[in-house]
Amino acid sequence: MQDALARLTTFWSGHGCLTVQPMNTEVGAGTLNPATSLRVLGPEPWKVAYVEPSVRPDDARYGDNPNRIQMHTQFQVILKPEPGNAQELYLESLAALGIDTRAHDIRFVEDNWASPALGAWGLGWEVWLDGLEITQFTYFQQSGGVALDPVSVEITYGMERILMALQGVTHFKEIAYAPGISYGEIFGQGEYEMSRYYLDDADIATHRELFDRYGDEAARMVELGLPIPAHVNVLKMSHAFNVLDARGAVSTSDRATAFARMRSLAHEVAEQWIAKRGQEGFPLGTVASEGKAAAGSVVVPADTDPQTAVFEIGVEEMPPAEAHAARTHVEQRLRALLDAAHLDHGDVAVHATPRRIVARIEAVAASEPDRTVTVRGPKTAAAFDADGNPTKAALGFARSNGVDVADLTTVEAAGATHVAVVRVQTGRHALEVLADLIGDIAVGLRSGKNMRWSDPNLTFTRPIRWLGAMWGPHVVPAVASGLAAADLTRAHRSSDEPVLRIAHADDLASALERNGIVLDESLRRRIIVEQAADAARAVDGTIDFDAEAALVDQVTFLVEQPVAVLGSFEESYLDLPDEVLTSVMRKHQRYFPVRGQDGALLPHFAAVANGPIDEPTVRAGNEAVLRARFEDAAFFYRADLKTPIEEMRQRLGRLAFADRLGSIADRADRIKAIALSLADAAGIADDDRRVLTEAAALVKFDLGSHLVTEMTSLAGTLARTYARAAGRDDAVAEALFEAELPRHAGDLVPASTAGALLALADRLDFFVGLGSTVGMPTGSKDPFALRRAALGLIAVHRSAAPAVAGVSLREGIRVAASAQPVEVTAAHADVMEGFLRDRLAQQLIDEGHRFDLVAAVLPLADRPALAEVRLGELESEVGTDRFRRLAAAIQRVSRILPSDAAPVSEFGLLTAASEQRLIAEFDRSAGADGGLSDWIALAAGLPEAVDAFFEEVLVMDPDPQIRSQRLGLLSALDRNAASRLDWSAVQL
Amino acid sequence: MQDALARLTTFWSGHGCLTVQPMNTEVGAGTLNPATSLRVLGPEPWKVAYVEPSVRPDDARYGDNPNRIQMHTQFQVILKPEPGNAQELYLESLAALGIDTRAHDIRFVEDNWASPALGAWGLGWEVWLDGLEITQFTYFQQSGGVALDPVSVEITYGMERILMALQGVTHFKEIAYAPGISYGEIFGQGEYEMSRYYLDDADIATHRELFDRYGDEAARMVELGLPIPAHVNVLKMSHAFNVLDARGAVSTSDRATAFARMRSLAHEVAEQWIAKRGQEGFPLGTVASEGKAAAGSVVVPADTDPQTAVFEIGVEEMPPAEAHAARTHVEQRLRALLDAAHLDHGDVAVHATPRRIVARIEAVAASEPDRTVTVRGPKTAAAFDADGNPTKAALGFARSNGVDVADLTTVEAAGATHVAVVRVQTGRHALEVLADLIGDIAVGLRSGKNMRWSDPNLTFTRPIRWLGAMWGPHVVPAVASGLAAADLTRAHRSSDEPVLRIAHADDLASALERNGIVLDESLRRRIIVEQAADAARAVDGTIDFDAEAALVDQVTFLVEQPVAVLGSFEESYLDLPDEVLTSVMRKHQRYFPVRGQDGALLPHFAAVANGPIDEPTVRAGNEAVLRARFEDAAFFYRADLKTPIEEMRQRLGRLAFADRLGSIADRADRIKAIALSLADAAGIADDDRRVLTEAAALVKFDLGSHLVTEMTSLAGTLARTYARAAGRDDAVAEALFEAELPRHAGDLVPASTAGALLALADRLDFFVGLGSTVGMPTGSKDPFALRRAALGLIAVHRSAAPAVAGVSLREGIRVAASAQPVEVTAAHADVMEGFLRDRLAQQLIDEGHRFDLVAAVLPLADRPALAEVRLGELESEVGTDRFRRLAAAIQRVSRILPSDAAPVSEFGLLTAASEQRLIAEFDRSAGADGGLSDWIALAAGLPEAVDAFFEEVLVMDPDPQIRSQRLGLLSALDRNAASRLDWSAVQL
Repeated sequence: MQDALARLTTFWSGHGCLTVQPMNTEVGAGTLNPATSLRVLGPEPWKVAYVEPSVRPDDARYGDNPNRIQMHTQFQVILKPEPGNAQELYLESLAALGIDTRAHDIRFVEDNWASPALGAWGLGWEVWLDGLEITQFTYFQQSGGVALDPVSVEITYGMERILMALQGVTHFKEIAYAPGISYGEIFGQGEYEMSRYYLDDADIATHRELFDRYGDEAARMVELGLPIPAHVNVLKMSHAFNVLDARGAVSTSDRATAFARMRSLAHEVAEQWIAKRGQEGFPLGTVASEGKAAAGSVVVPADTDPQTAVFEIGVEEMPPAEAHAARTHVEQRLRALLDAAHLDHGDVAVHATPRRIVARIEAVAASEPDRTVTVRGPKTAAAFDADGNPTKAALGFARSNGVDVADLTTVEAAGATHVAVVRVQTGRHALEVLADLIGDIAVGLRSGKNMRWSDPNLTFTRPIRWLGAMWGPHVVPAVASGLAAADLTRAHRSSDEPVLRIAHADDLASALERNGIVLDESLRRRIIVEQAADAARAVDGTIDFDAEAALVDQVTFLVEQPVAVLGSFEESYLDLPDEVLTSVMRKHQRYFPVRGQDGALLPHFAAVANGPIDEPTVRAGNEAVLRARFEDAAFFYRADLKTPIEEMRQRLGRLAFADRLGSIADRADRIKAIALSLADAAGIADDDRRVLTEAAALVKFDLGSHLVTEMTSLAGTLARTYARAAGRDDAVAEALFEAELPRHAGDLVPASTAGALLALADRLDFFVGLGSTVGMPTGSKDPFALRRAALGLIAVHRSAAPAVAGVSLREGIRVAASAQPVEVTAAHADVMEGFLRDRLAQQLIDEGHRFDLVAAVLPLADRPALAEVRLGELESEVGTDRFRRLAAAIQRVSRILPSDAAPVSEFGLLTAASEQRLIAEFDRSAGADGGLSDWIALAAGLPEAVDAFFEEVLVMDPDPQIRSQRLGLLSALDRNAASRLDWSAVQL
Repeated sequence: MQDALARLTTFWSGHGCLTVQPMNTEVGAGTLNPATSLRVLGPEPWKVAYVEPSVRPDDARYGDNPNRIQMHTQFQVILKPEPGNAQELYLESLAALGIDTRAHDIRFVEDNWASPALGAWGLGWEVWLDGLEITQFTYFQQSGGVALDPVSVEITYGMERILMALQGVTHFKEIAYAPGISYGEIFGQGEYEMSRYYLDDADIATHRELFDRYGDEAARMVELGLPIPAHVNVLKMSHAFNVLDARGAVSTSDRATAFARMRSLAHEVAEQWIAKRGQEGFPLGTVASEGKAAAGSVVVPADTDPQTAVFEIGVEEMPPAEAHAARTHVEQRLRALLDAAHLDHGDVAVHATPRRIVARIEAVAASEPDRTVTVRGPKTAAAFDADGNPTKAALGFARSNGVDVADLTTVEAAGATHVAVVRVQTGRHALEVLADLIGDIAVGLRSGKNMRWSDPNLTFTRPIRWLGAMWGPHVVPAVASGLAAADLTRAHRSSDEPVLRIAHADDLASALERNGIVLDESLRRRIIVEQAADAARAVDGTIDFDAEAALVDQVTFLVEQPVAVLGSFEESYLDLPDEVLTSVMRKHQRYFPVRGQDGALLPHFAAVANGPIDEPTVRAGNEAVLRARFEDAAFFYRADLKTPIEEMRQRLGRLAFADRLGSIADRADRIKAIALSLADAAGIADDDRRVLTEAAALVKFDLGSHLVTEMTSLAGTLARTYARAAGRDDAVAEALFEAELPRHAGDLVPASTAGALLALADRLDFFVGLGSTVGMPTGSKDPFALRRAALGLIAVHRSAAPAVAGVSLREGIRVAASAQPVEVTAAHADVMEGFLRDRLAQQLIDEGHRFDLVAAVLPLADRPALAEVRLGELESEVGTDRFRRLAAAIQRVSRILPSDAAPVSEFGLLTAASEQRLIAEFDRSAGADGGLSDWIALAAGLPEAVDAFFEEVLVMDPDPQIRSQRLGLLSALDRNAASRLDWSAVQL
């Protein structure tokens, strides 16, 4: 280990890096050392390398877990500005460490690093060595919320992992640290004791106090204009926070508040740092921007036959989704640009791999055809005077087109004759057309999340590093900012000849193919599926590719040259819940879980490597990684199973929820109370009631488990698992699971009454509690994700069991409000109700419903499920005659009513036939309690009765009593109709 | 710089050291890193090297000072067990850094490192490179209050200083850190900003809170048996304390309290660490003790002529005082042992240098003479029975002496005849005698402060590394534990031949002389004085060797081969106060200040190097060091001169004094009040009063200055300087200086009335305040040095101006007690008074006064000055007849008085002549108010009157009234005498 650190130090100082010392206060990562977090700011160049023992209290495992330690050793490199070949330098540094980069599967896997606490983020990768994340490689984009210019490359090596892989040991303690002494011998006791401190024994009140005190110090230092001590104090805050977090004393909203405080300080520190450096004239100098490449001049070749054209945009490893999207975008854009040009061409095909987007255009003509262009001028009548002499207009037109007035001709347009200039425009050569078009496409590439690198005029998901473009044997002189196209492409980085020269456009595909690169994504996908299936078959297993479609898509864009590798793990891990195993395999490792004929997991997986590798090496590596991950999960799972679920529930008392809203235990108590109150209102009884009561007493208990603390996405899932393991019946376990649904847009929703009530209560509590303390979301500010809570609330209601559909959200808000430890005013409640109504409307509209119809059912928004049903009815009625007539009649009634009209029920003075008829029709429909269609059927006579009424009687009778009864009748009718729909909203 | 760190890392890892990372929380030194402070504990071996950026808030100078920085870079090496040649390895490492160890003056200068806060200490040196301290080199003796076994060597390089010297730059910012970038460019801004934080802006209340919180955490971790997190929390306490200290918020007693808390925690951590390692079976193994060297067998040589004998005990650099003492000790011991042996010999001479103690004995005979030994047995009468046959007694005696009964002879003893055995004992050979004697001397070497190293049977001020011993051409086979004597000595470490072989005892002195080593300390002293005087003469200067006698003594034992070097400094520094300059030159650098003919300092100094050096190099080095030190002082001095002294006085409010006793400002207020109150009591008026009033308002103000904070020994001195600079008159300035006297035993005492009163008040406040809150010293526990305060108090009183001599300490305690913010009970006051009385008695006895006479004057202890005068009188009287008679008479009176006798003043019934005579004599002397001698003269008639009284009257007259008057008279006489002396104490 010490040798490895020395080698890396030597390597990078040989590449011009300073070496400095680790930070002398605990940091979670080398990034926080001011040698990174401050030095990446501003225009000064900076190259540094250092070791950073990084403390992550959360990762404490008493030294038991082979791969997780509370203090791990990072080796951190900053290259500012990014040099353009940092990936290559990095691979060289691995070789310097003694890693055979050809035998291993080394991959750059999307990982966009962000520290929301410190307003820092970057785009890049985690580098995988046979599935093991050994390095974080990032183009640093912001620090302290300030955009970086120039951009730095940050390379962070995870030394323990690298050394475990290098030394082939399976536990960090077995790493040979130096001759004759192991890592465990040096650090084992510290791991155990500091784990005890961070996980069990550190005093929570003390660390809260430390967080505040350091925060105050940082703020004072910012005020005094001292960014460095401010930064140091922010680091100390951050460590205190991390300790609290490891102690399980940080709730979601605590976290948001703490992050906001740290982020704001970090931002002030960053701005102050830059300003101070600027005042000193940036003593280390200023990085010059890179210039643009010179546009190549087009030397028109002699050949005139059509030729294949290809171009390749070479990119550092794109995230799978971005590679996929970029392929589509380039194809569309290419077709559009080709259409706009006038160049004859054959088929167009665009493919993408993680590192390249390649387009091929068949038979591109040597040049555009020459074209006749007619420029229309003034009408002939205006162009020549009575004597046939050109007017000023004609002279001006001719001059402005560079021709003599004698050369003007005429054209017909819109029935008039105009003077005109007709010219022959020479078609541009294909090289010229293609150069423009390719440059346009490359410069115009964008992704969901774009980054900047050294080229100031390009921005894309990852740096674009080369441009290849040929038409037949000729290089197309395309330019994209600093990049000029060449007749070069690139093979796998570890191949003997990583840069290949291409003699002819037709050779690109074959050259890549010869080098093992499968350009066509459909073909790659097929190969992956076949290889993975073959691998699974070797152990009598199958892979459910339907279920894994998203993973297959992802893997397709993670490799250029797929090589499936079958790996195994110890059967004992099959004791872990299925969701835990598959979540780890899929999400963390991109492995395909292998199942037996009965659908049960087998102790195998299929991994897909990239390019030529030494298979036993890669298999062993991937197996080791998975073992470590499973061991980690098993560690927690075993601990959880030993813990009574009531004890987990009790632990919630230690987790703060939010300012003034108590602990998570308080919140769980509120959810229980709200759910039971809603159940009362909805008249839930019998078995549903029993299930609800049992589940409500336990709701959220799994947040007190270790495994959920670790894998938060399993909240609910593990509640179900642990409840079952604790002997609770399936319905209760399921309700506990469903209480957490939906976990994201499009997720499952509760199916059971108890689950739905808990899910509603959960979100009502969250929404009302935070809405009334932190405030409702405004604009883009929604730090506690209240919008998501509102949408979840609505989704649950809309999908819930019939028994729940009648739950009133207004009532829910009221119940939740009275459960809060803070006052929630009626005005608050109104705002919240309005907020939910707006969300429902938006949701329905987004789902494709007509705006006016959505508006029409909003009077029912208090019960979204009913509103949705009503909307369906409305949509089936709205086109019918009977609806149109009825709606027109109701709108007519509404329009005539003065704003102060009130319903009456005494119609003694209304004796006319039309009056009696209207009363009768109204009576027939008024009491109807079914659906909209039923009511419309009952109200079928209303339109005619209304028409007759208005024809026969004068509503505004001089006798005030009669007038009052007539208005009262219409008003009653209007009110009754309005309770079913907002008729005025419907556009007929 | 980064290259230097890499070279040291390579060097030490090449010597088997692990390399680890710096501590990730602020530490003041690499020692605090658990890789040192814990790993040196217990029996496990450990070799480690690491860089440690060490934070000393106190050293913050805003980056302005060329040589002081708040964060400096240590390179720390621990070798456990100490390998025996660590000094040599260290010098090799300097060479690896590119330092020419021959051109420079490299010295090991006594520096006994101790961290009272953490219960850690060691003996060793600061290593000087041309006067610049570049390394701390320590044999680590205790950590956490636990004695270390085995002992580790700790080597701590000060990298910035080394690099400044190597690169020849005069400011830390100019160090080339890496190619193209300077230290200042990397760390300059941090130095400024962190200096601002530590010196000006860190929040004091926050850091007090941090200290306490971390302390609580550490204590809890100790309780939980987790020494590592406990240690980490102790480090955080320590840093918080250091910040408080830099902010000037730590008083002497704060410091003592804080240190006690940290020390106690550190001790528990250390014990727990060892216990835990033991429970795990000391996983890294156990260091085996070194064995003893085999005693050489004596091969008796053929020569029988007397020969010179020499022996040399080679020691790593001894502290000067210890070398001096060791020389004396060895000589005494050698003479005593030679006397006890029977070996003829000539003159004996013993000399010492820092590295060796060498003894030479002329003409040592080849062997002891043979001796006849007679062993006396039972009386002849008991040895043989009537028949002349040997009794059992005779048989037993013969057997036990290994002879046949027939061989018994007889001797006369005490008038009786005994059987006896007479044997000739062959004299031992000189080699044998010398071997025993030299071994004894070496093993028995002790010093004031002894250390342990790898040899478990030796202990001395520094490790004994070699033993040379010869008799003529023969090696004396002496052994001292692991060391066997050889015919080897050592020259200067950098010489071509550092180990020299000696052919004959006579050659040792010449071999050393040839190698430049001046063995004879008197000669060395003379050379030093001559060379330094010569050097001063070159600039028309002189050195006051009388004033510098102590320094000359010290330097004599700092070098083996003195080479005086004249250096200069910029004249501008002469603006600094004389005491500052000389204190720096003498105390820190061991340079001789050079003065002009008028006695004023010249901008020159004489340094004394050791051994052959490159003089320009060494001069330049020493000048650079002094410049840096002066610059440091000047920095503060300039800042102080800009500060009004009233503002400094105000700053005292920020310095806490002690728990419940407020700030130093509160203390200064009390001193003022006490002094004025004492002045009232003593009737001080006029000009003394004015001076006192003015000075009292400012007392201790210089504790608020930067320079005193930095050089605390100048407290008072600088008060005078700054008061004068602020325009106060000389008397006030002098009183402020005198208020701090005496600063140590034997120091100056106040000469002025105002100064004396302030000095008394200062110590009264300190003594009464702390004595009543912290408690009086007990046994060896006196954390606040109350004994010293008491001794100072007495010293001031004894020496004070006559006006002050009448001040009553009892009254002083009362006044001081009522000034305290806490209650001081009468019982407290009594204890304090008793404590002072005991101190006075001890002091007087220590000064050589007779115990009984001291006891006799103790009734006057309340006014020590008067007690002392009385003691002088007593001593001049005690031998006289008149005194003896008077004392006898008074003692006779005392003895006869019952305990309940009380004086009366009515003697109407006492009409006898002897009664009348006694009354008359009593009356004559009773009212006398002068000195003792006056009173004795007046009481000259008393003895006879007493004798007559007792002869003529019966005291215990049957008439109770008469009895009462007689007893009353005697009692009055007794009381009156007792008020002058405790007559009963005087031994006649």
